[in-house]
Order: sequence, then structure tokens, then C-alpha cells
Amino acid sequence: MAYTAPLEEMLFLLENVFDIKKMQKYDSFSSLDIDTINSILLEASRVSEKTLFPLNAISDQIPAKQENGEIICSPGFLEAYKELCSGGWVGMAGSTFFGGMGMPAIVTSCVNEIMNSGCVSLALNPLMTQGQIEALEHHASEEIKEIFLPKLISGEWSGTMNLTEPMAGSDVGALTSQATQLEDGSYSITGQKIYISWGDHNLSENICHLVLARLPNAPIGTKGISLFLVPKYLLDSDKKPTITNNVKTISIEKKMGLHGSPTAVLEYAGSIGWIVGNPNDGMRAMFTMMNNARLGVGIQGLSQAEVSYQQAINFAKNRKQGRSLIKDGFNTILDHADVRRNLLLMRCLTLVSRAICFETAMAIDLSKQENSEELRDRAAFLTPIAKAFSTDSGCRVAELAVQVHGGMGYIRDTGVEQFYRDVRITAIYEGTNGIQAMDLVGRKLSKNGKTAKALIKEIENTEKACAKTNSFSPEIIKKIKSARCDLYQTLDWMVNTNNLNDRFSGATPFLKAFGLVLGAHYLIKSALASQDTERCSIAKFYVNNILPESHAATQASVNGSVELYEISF
Amino acid sequence: MAYTAPLEEMLFLLENVFDIKKMQKYDSFSSLDIDTINSILLEASRVSEKTLFPLNAISDQIPAKQENGEIICSPGFLEAYKELCSGGWVGMAGSTFFGGMGMPAIVTSCVNEIMNSGCVSLALNPLMTQGQIEALEHHASEEIKEIFLPKLISGEWSGTMNLTEPMAGSDVGALTSQATQLEDGSYSITGQKIYISWGDHNLSENICHLVLARLPNAPIGTKGISLFLVPKYLLDSDKKPTITNNVKTISIEKKMGLHGSPTAVLEYAGSIGWIVGNPNDGMRAMFTMMNNARLGVGIQGLSQAEVSYQQAINFAKNRKQGRSLIKDGFNTILDHADVRRNLLLMRCLTLVSRAICFETAMAIDLSKQENSEELRDRAAFLTPIAKAFSTDSGCRVAELAVQVHGGMGYIRDTGVEQFYRDVRITAIYEGTNGIQAMDLVGRKLSKNGKTAKALIKEIENTEKACAKTNSFSPEIIKKIKSARCDLYQTLDWMVNTNNLNDRFSGATPFLKAFGLVLGAHYLIKSALASQDTERCSIAKFYVNNILPESHAATQASVNGSVELYEISF
Repeated sequence: MAYTAPLEEMLFLLENVFDIKKMQKYDSFSSLDIDTINSILLEASRVSEKTLFPLNAISDQIPAKQENGEIICSPGFLEAYKELCSGGWVGMAGSTFFGGMGMPAIVTSCVNEIMNSGCVSLALNPLMTQGQIEALEHHASEEIKEIFLPKLISGEWSGTMNLTEPMAGSDVGALTSQATQLEDGSYSITGQKIYISWGDHNLSENICHLVLARLPNAPIGTKGISLFLVPKYLLDSDKKPTITNNVKTISIEKKMGLHGSPTAVLEYAGSIGWIVGNPNDGMRAMFTMMNNARLGVGIQGLSQAEVSYQQAINFAKNRKQGRSLIKDGFNTILDHADVRRNLLLMRCLTLVSRAICFETAMAIDLSKQENSEELRDRAAFLTPIAKAFSTDSGCRVAELAVQVHGGMGYIRDTGVEQFYRDVRITAIYEGTNGIQAMDLVGRKLSKNGKTAKALIKEIENTEKACAKTNSFSPEIIKKIKSARCDLYQTLDWMVNTNNLNDRFSGATPFLKAFGLVLGAHYLIKSALASQDTERCSIAKFYVNNILPESHAATQASVNGSVELYEISF
Repeated sequence: MAYTAPLEEMLFLLENVFDIKKMQKYDSFSSLDIDTINSILLEASRVSEKTLFPLNAISDQIPAKQENGEIICSPGFLEAYKELCSGGWVGMAGSTFFGGMGMPAIVTSCVNEIMNSGCVSLALNPLMTQGQIEALEHHASEEIKEIFLPKLISGEWSGTMNLTEPMAGSDVGALTSQATQLEDGSYSITGQKIYISWGDHNLSENICHLVLARLPNAPIGTKGISLFLVPKYLLDSDKKPTITNNVKTISIEKKMGLHGSPTAVLEYAGSIGWIVGNPNDGMRAMFTMMNNARLGVGIQGLSQAEVSYQQAINFAKNRKQGRSLIKDGFNTILDHADVRRNLLLMRCLTLVSRAICFETAMAIDLSKQENSEELRDRAAFLTPIAKAFSTDSGCRVAELAVQVHGGMGYIRDTGVEQFYRDVRITAIYEGTNGIQAMDLVGRKLSKNGKTAKALIKEIENTEKACAKTNSFSPEIIKKIKSARCDLYQTLDWMVNTNNLNDRFSGATPFLKAFGLVLGAHYLIKSALASQDTERCSIAKFYVNNILPESHAATQASVNGSVELYEISF
């Protein structure tokens, strides 16, 4: 079993579909030419392929465990984490002023895909820290930044997100953790938080928790939530993190997968913390971290799709079974039409997820450089699609990878079933995919769906460009047009439906349809940009075999809520 | 956590959709009125709910293990198995002449659903024995029948199927195990078999293996395979199974799920066996067992859908989260549209899978009673759909159940993730769902697709009946008609496509489409039969939200094989 980072595909996308060159016109990225990016990704690949991937199966078998109050990580994780730190991978997006590499989201996303394909449970640790770095850069006081950012960027300290409580999951506004201000301006935090990814571990010398809690007399709901930075250890007079801060790890969860990542229940009992952002405005700062993390989790889904696909291809190329219908004698199962169909479904969904995630990353980068509301809206619109579509695709691709393996797919040793279990969490955490869909048809369709309409216009332009070439038959172009028009009508229905619950009723299929139509757009763009017959064939397969699902999804988007409440349970 | 057998729904289907009364006209089933069936199912429910279900989670945590050459089953399995035996459940379909209850497949299917919902890994054991009983009843010599059937029917001995070898999985014809005839007419069997469900265990005093092997100079491929009955122990002079027969358990597999069911690698080294059926004609006898087992595995998929749905409903009813959009204040997540959508998807897919499995069972029963080729063809056509559609649905419903649970769905203790892992094997074993689909578009469309066309005609009749009532709007009827016509055209394409590989290329989506359109047929029939507004609402939801997937599937069915081979891997 092995993993090879798909560098060629990544670089092709960056150069030919997303025109990465345009990033160089900004001062911060002027030296970021394709050769430099190539070097960065090559080095990331080396770490992932050689160091992370061999640990992946081991960490599944030997999960993180709690022993005498300490969390002991899976074998090899400590050394691998140190390698991630020394390579600068943890803080690669962090400000150069605090020791980071100042990389744009598009490059960070490539690296995150590579690292997560190697070992998703370990790579989740820096992913959390990256989100915290961004949240602090935007919302923390200068004093906090100076103390924490260098340590987080170097990976000496790591970061977590603390939202969920036993009675406050998707409904963050229901949380009850309390914060009271102390005389020196810091806060005392008390409450229990659950499902904290990498909430405790022995990889970094300190763990910094971003904790949502309520100030005394705060308004109910999300408008009364503030954000606090609460480290596991406070600094002593030598500025070393040695003083315990009453953050107790009650337990770590036994989970279906992601065994290498300790998921903690944390108890804060008068723990000292500092406010990040303004009182009662914690959700805004947390959303900076969450949006970063949502794209990151989308990338995790993509990473598991890629690695599942690679294992399935490798298996299919080597497994001899059945008489070939296309040549004489026996051959490998790669000759069987049904196996090829599965492999092509996997390949298409992986390619499409990558394109959507990269598009989202580019929108984030450009919106920051241009300080453009339009681009911010674009990034905000794409983020829930990148999260939900890529993680749903990750689950589906891993499921198909198990299927291609037949009985062997169900056996532990083959390894592919681990991807199936690991990837499943990505559709749940950082906001379930249902929550993503509700976000999409709620807030993200504001301004009369302007952002969504602009994206659909781009898809139409791709169709037109396509019609000018001979690369695709009129039937293929007609199918894309039909899917695009259908999506537009559905969008129109959403935008003109005032009852929010009617929109919510079709949210999940609407998000799926949008992702699927975007998929055709990117695969056609890739084919046209490369003039490669194989890319044309892949796009054609997608349009014939996957894109039709968008019509089923749009039909399911516009039925309203009445039918859902006619039935009792 | 609890399971309640869906008796009301089962009896409704039997009485109102499948007209179970017509079974009573046959002598063998004359006493099988609905009250009797109700009593049987009530008793089965008691065993499943009280004895099996509590063992399910335990067996996941404490799998079967090999110790000093013995296989030790999960705690409680031995006692539960004895209860299944003493209740007559193992041999319920077996001939009354040999101690069975002579139950038709339709009643056995209800019982199998109930038992598998309780504990799928334990219920798999009698499922295998049931298949063996049927194979022996049809193909074994009188002598074999007299020795083995009473013991198998009572459950004192259990049965397994031995097809797969390391290099012969889906391609059974590649197997190399050898059989040579001995002077007394028995055979000496040598070879290795893998993935043998319940291949070794300590629940019954003997384990009877039906083993596929080759006679000397047998033709290559499936035409040179013979079937042998090879017990773990031979009988001593007191007719007790005490003499070892050189059947060695090399190992048992570590699997993603189904931990309670030991999956063995077996080594036969000159083991004594007896031929079942004629030399080189073993596949025919094995198919009797496999077809029985294929419906059984479809029922397993259904059983995991039902139990996953029950847990999700129970969770959604109790989990308070988020402000309700339909009433004042906070309520449970059952109020949320996206959660209701998921629950309704689950409910519909479960209902449809049950109807398809029951239809298949009825066709099997009627075909035997009437000795009718038309009915045999109907059963043969429906079997791969029952297997693949129900197991795919089981996987999908379990996935949605995890999703409804949010983060808790990913945690071991909640239990729902076990269903997700357990059900996954059902889409693989007894012929992967890809193999089922190839069977459907290959052999099962012989005679110009006559059987398929007759079924589609029945769907059309349901539409007509529907149009005569006011239960459904013209839009709903139009959607069903559109799906049915589309399916018919796709069938026509399949039947008129001579290149088998072109058919195979669309086999999987074709099977899905057929299942989906049958689903509308049964839900509409149920609604019309009951005149219950809730059943109408369910059918309407299905037609609006799930049936549209059939169009995507038919579009993916007719693209032929060329596009699959244009792309290299």
C-alpha cells in the first residue's frame, strides 16, 4: 500500500484552470511562481508519502489513549509532528511577521490535501492550529498575537476549537459555559466542552483552546457568546508554559474511525483566558476559524477520496479475476466494465471535489487581496459547497473503493475500510453537511442570489466556449446546458421563496445539484485547457453518468416543507 | 437502545399488497392464515427483541476469537443459538418430513428480517444453514438427506457455503480445490477456501460445509465444478460426530464489522465428502443455495435499514437542539426540515426494500407451488434486485442514521455506527452488487426481457388504478409514468443490445432504476390499499424526492462500454 501525491493534477489545475499566475501581481505573493509552488508541494509530498502515510494504518490499530491523566498518541505521531513543525507546515499560512510563510489558501489547500491523504487523523492537528492562527490574526489583541502566534505558527503550541457542549451541538447558541472578568482584565472560564478534536495530547508543549462562553447577563442565543483563548498551561516568569490552568481532560471518545486523533471531553473550572474580539461578538471571530476549518474539512474529504481511489486502482490493476470480455483469456478486474464504471465515478468525484475546493481557496485569497465584497461573497458561497460536496464525495468514493476490493475491502488488513471509516466524520464535524446546506440556501443566497447567479453565468460561459470547439458532441453540451438551466430555475425558486423552512427542506439536494453542475464546468474547462483526449473522455463520462443526478437533486429541492410535516414519526 | 419488530407493517404488506391469502389454497400452506402468521412473527419478535438485540453491541466489542485451535464465539451467542434452535427457527422452511415447519419463503423472510435486525452477525448462521437445507432437499441423495437434514433443521448441526478461494472470488470458475472418488463412493477433498461465513464456531456439534471442487480431468471454468458435502466431524459407530475430518481452520478474519460472525480460512486435506447433485454440475446445486442466500442477504440489508431507522427516529425524538421554525421555542431535532428529510428518505427506502424482498419471496413460493416457468423467471429476475437494491438501501439508510445523530453517530457507544459497519458487507457477499447487476442484465433479461416487461406492465396497472382515485395529484401520477416509461425504454435498449459488455456497462444503474420504479409501485399500492393519508404522503414524498433518481440511473444505463475503455488508469 502506498500513496503518491497527485502533483501533476494539482499543478495542471493551478496553472490551467485557476490561473495561479494572477496571484503574483500581489506583493505578498510576487515570488510565488509555479516552480516555487512545485518545490513546496514536492517537499510536502515527501513528508506525507514517507512519514505520514506509513503511520496511518498503525494509528488506526493503536489509537490515542488516556493513561494516568495523560493522553498518549499513536506510535510515531510525536516524531511526525515534529517533522511537520520543523518543515514549517503548521504555520505555512501564518504571517511572516510572526514566523509564518504567508502562503495563500490555494497553496495551503494543496499541502493540506497531501498531508491529509497521508494521515488524516494526524493532519487534523495542524488544521485546527491553522484555523486558530487565522482567528487570532484577525481578532486578537496585539499582546495576545505577540505571545501566541509565534508559538502556534512554529507548532510548539497547538490550537483547538471549543464550541460543542452536551446540549449545544449544531445549535451553538444553546451553550452555557460561563466567563467572568477578573481584575487584571483576563477571564475565568467554567464549563464542559465535548468533541474537542486534538483537545489533549502529548505532541506540543502547550494546547491553546479557543472557547465559546457567556459573560454574565449576556443575551440568549448566539448574540450572547464571547470567544476566549484558554491555554492548557499558563506561562511562568520565564515565559514557559508550566502552570496548570484547570483544564481537565475527562475522557477521550471511542470512535468509528480517526483513531489517531484524540477527541476529548474537557472540563474548565475557573481556567484563565483572554477575550478574542469584542464581548458578545464571539461568533464572528469563531466563524473566521470555522470557515477556514470548513474548507480544511472539505479538503480532508477530498484527501480521503484521492487515497481511496489510488488504493482501488492499484488493487484493480493487480487482481486477476474473471474472463475478459475485451481481450482473450483472463486478465485483471480493470477489464470489467462495472469495475471501470466504479473507478471512473471515483476519479470524477475526486477531480470535481478538488476543483471546487481550489476555487474556494482562490476566492478566499483574492477576496483578501482585493478587499472585495463580491469576492468575499463568492468565497462565503463556495465554502459550504466545498465542505459538504467534497466530504460527501469522499464518503462515496471510499464506499466505491471498498466495493472494488470485493470481500477484501471488508478485511482490516487491506486498509481501504479505514478510509471508509475515517472519512465518515468529515460529513459531520465543522457543521454537519445539513447545516452547510442550510447555510447555503439561507445566508449565502442573500442579495437576491447574486453570487450564485454569477457562478452559473460562468458555467454558461464554459458551455459557450465548449460549443466553439469540436471537443464535445452537441449531445454533451445539451446535457450540460439542461443541468445548468435546471439549476438556475431551482436557484430562482430558492431566492423567491420567503418561507425559510421551505428553502431548508430542499437545502441538501440543492447543494448537491450546485456541486454537480460546478463539476461539469471544471471538467470541461480542464478538457478545453489541455486539449487532452483523456480529459475530454473523463468530462464526457461525467456528463453522461454523474451530472444527470443533478436533475434528481433539483427536483428534490423545490417541494417545500409541507410534505415533510404531513407525516408523523 | 431498543428494537421493535415492525409487525404491523409486515402484516399490512402481506394482507393488503401481496394477498397472502392466496397461499392458503395450496395444501402445504392451508393452515397459514394471517392469525397464525401473526403468532409466528410475534414469537420471533420476542426472541429477537429480548435475546438477540442485547447481544448485538456486545458481539461488536467482543468478537469471535481463535484460541488453542477453537473458535470461541461472542458472549451469549451459544445460549441465543440454542434458543433459535429450540424455537424451530433454524429449520422453519425445512421439510416437515425431516422435522421442519415447512414455512414458505414469505414467512421465513419476515422472520429473517426480524432476527437479523436483532443481531445480524448471529442470524447469519441460521441463514447459511437454511440455504444448505434447501440445496440438500433439491439435490442430495436420499441417504444424505436422511442423515443430514434432521440435524440441520434442528440446528444441532449448522451449514456453510464454500465457494471462494484466494484466486477465485467473483470468478468462481477459477477455483482449484480437488476431489477424487474413493472406493466406497465418497470423495476426498483437498484445497483452501476463504471468507467462509461461520466456517468454524462452537455453537453446533457439527458444521457441514458445502464445498465446490473439481473432479480429475473436469472441464475448465464453471462447467467442471462439482458440489460436495463435507462435515467438520464424521460419524462414529454410534452416529455421533466425533471423528475429525481434516478440516482445519487456518485463521479468522479481522473485519470492519460483523464481528460476531467468524469468517474463516479453511484448509481441506483429504477430507471426506459426498457429492451433491451430478458430477460437474455443482454450480446448479450451489445456485439453489445462493439464490436462497441472496434473498436472505437482501433481507439482511433491509433489517439493518429498519433498525438504523428506528434508532435515528428515537434519537431525533429526544434530542433537543435548535429553535423550531414551526412552533414557538426550542424543540427536538424532529422539527428540523433537513432532519425530517433524512428520516423520510430512510423510511421510504426501508419500506421499498421490504416490499421488493417480500415480492421476491412470494414469487419463489408461488413458482414452487405452481411449478410455473413464468413464476420461476419472475423469482429469478427479482432476486438480484432484492439482493442489491436492499443492501444498497441498507448502507444508505445506515449512513443517514449516522448523519441524523450528528457527532454522536460517530461515537462507538451510541451504537448506530455499528449498523453502518455491519451492513456494508451485505453489498459485497453472496455476489457483489455489481455481480447482481450483471446477472440482471445478462441471464435475467433472456426471452426478450419478457419477465421485466411483465413487471413494468404491473407498474402501469398501478398507475391506472391510481389515476382512478383522488388520492394523488396528476403531477404525481405523471412523475411515476415518466419514470416507468423511461425504465421501459432503457429495458428495450438492454434487450436490443447484443454486445454483452455494453449491457454490463450500464448494469448497476439499471438495477437501481428498476428498484426505484418498483418502489413507487409498492408505495402507491400500499397507499391505495389502505386509503391512509399518511401512506399517501409517504408515497408522494418518495415520488417527489427519491424516484427522480431513476432518471439519472437510466441515463447512466445506456451509454455503452466504449466510453469506459477510452480512459487509461
